[in-house]
Amino acid sequence: MQIEAKIQSLGLVLPAPPQVPAGVKVPFRWVRVSGNRAYASGHIPLEADGSIAKPVGRVGVDLSVDEGYEAARKLCLAMLGSLRNELGDLDRITAWLRVFSIVNCEPGFMETPKVTNGFSDLILELYGPERGGHARSTIGGLPAFNAAVEIEAEVEISDR
Amino acid sequence: MQIEAKIQSLGLVLPAPPQVPAGVKVPFRWVRVSGNRAYASGHIPLEADGSIAKPVGRVGVDLSVDEGYEAARKLCLAMLGSLRNELGDLDRITAWLRVFSIVNCEPGFMETPKVTNGFSDLILELYGPERGGHARSTIGGLPAFNAAVEIEAEVEISDR
Amino acid sequence: MQIEAKIQSLGLVLPAPPQVPAGVKVPFRWVRVSGNRAYASGHIPLEADGSIAKPVGRVGVDLSVDEGYEAARKLCLAMLGSLRNELGDLDRITAWLRVFSIVNCEPGFMETPKVTNGFSDLILELYGPERGGHARSTIGGLPAFNAAVEIEAEVEISDR
Repeated sequence: MQIEAKIQSLGLVLPAPPQVPAGVKVPFRWVRVSGNRAYASGHIPLEADGSIAKPVGRVGVDLSVDEGYEAARKLCLAMLGSLRNELGDLDRITAWLRVFSIVNCEPGFMETPKVTNGFSDLILELYGPERGGHARSTIGGLPAFNAAVEIEAEVEISDR
Repeated sequence: MQIEAKIQSLGLVLPAPPQVPAGVKVPFRWVRVSGNRAYASGHIPLEADGSIAKPVGRVGVDLSVDEGYEAARKLCLAMLGSLRNELGDLDRITAWLRVFSIVNCEPGFMETPKVTNGFSDLILELYGPERGGHARSTIGGLPAFNAAVEIEAEVEISDR
Repeated sequence: MQIEAKIQSLGLVLPAPPQVPAGVKVPFRWVRVSGNRAYASGHIPLEADGSIAKPVGRVGVDLSVDEGYEAARKLCLAMLGSLRNELGDLDRITAWLRVFSIVNCEPGFMETPKVTNGFSDLILELYGPERGGHARSTIGGLPAFNAAVEIEAEVEISDR
């Protein structure tokens, strides 16, 4: 439980499982495991109770870049919460492999990578450069529920 | 051939291989296999003859959400057709792992996940919750050929 | 070093590592290796010195389709450069598996797959149809730094 202890020592909290808006079915899993891989579904930023974090909308218009960075950091905690729930212990993640980020923005917005850094910086702070190092893509697009950012990931895991 | 029998029993048909518009080269494979993984290329909805399904365009503008759901269901059959052609038997898919969906829509459209459910619901109906359960992301964007939706996937497969 | 020799025999050059604009942090790896897989981050077209290739912008508006094709070919060389730097030898790539391409364009632009062909055609020329064959998706969206195209990939690799 070293990673979870580190999260607590930073004063951070893993939010409750994602709550989707009323009437929305979720016919998929937040995390899917196969062999030594876990696939994390596209997550969006959540409040501690699992509800969609405010503000939503376009970074550069409805949110500042700093607010976008903070949203990606919240999203990271949401994904870590889903991984903890599925894997039992975040220490089982032996390597972060692939991170794919979609930032809500207008054409011509040039700072999407800075937004995704809110996710990557926290992963690296928690897991260090060897386990935490990951391949990454960032694009502009339309995340689910008009969230500021949506990120999916693939990680390498050890046996229980 | 249990999955294919189930498809038939539902009155559904795996379409012919994708036909692309005249003049478009396809220098890639619809499905790529490596070890116990198969990667399905981005598929779009097809008619039974493999031609691009109508209507195309933006869900919420050119198509209703229900039509978008139906398009994602057609797309699912197209991807299953490609997987059957490559793997020989859809029963070889031991687990659905990752589904990535791009829904054609305008900024602010809030119902992209409902569209992708047309894909996920059929996978779960055919494979059940254990084999069919998958991680999933849905974003708004611009699918190839102005299709209503484009989806790629990664699945776990058994030896022949 | 057969692949690298082939690149040279075609008169092509692997560019220097990506240079990002001043003030942009890159808290991720251009290539991440795990077991027999390498994950290549989202790359954009580069000049030989590693700077962002010109022209940038929307294919169909700011660039022609042919210029977009050429941009995807430059991007391919940039990704091969990153893979060479991480793997030591491009001959270690035993199979191209998955290619995901985001083309910068306006809604309604129908030729995104032709742009991505600039990437796929070079991979197939260098690696041949068996090793080079790959699953692929192409969508329209907003690549980082307003580049004409952004592509990420997953490849199968052999031990050193």
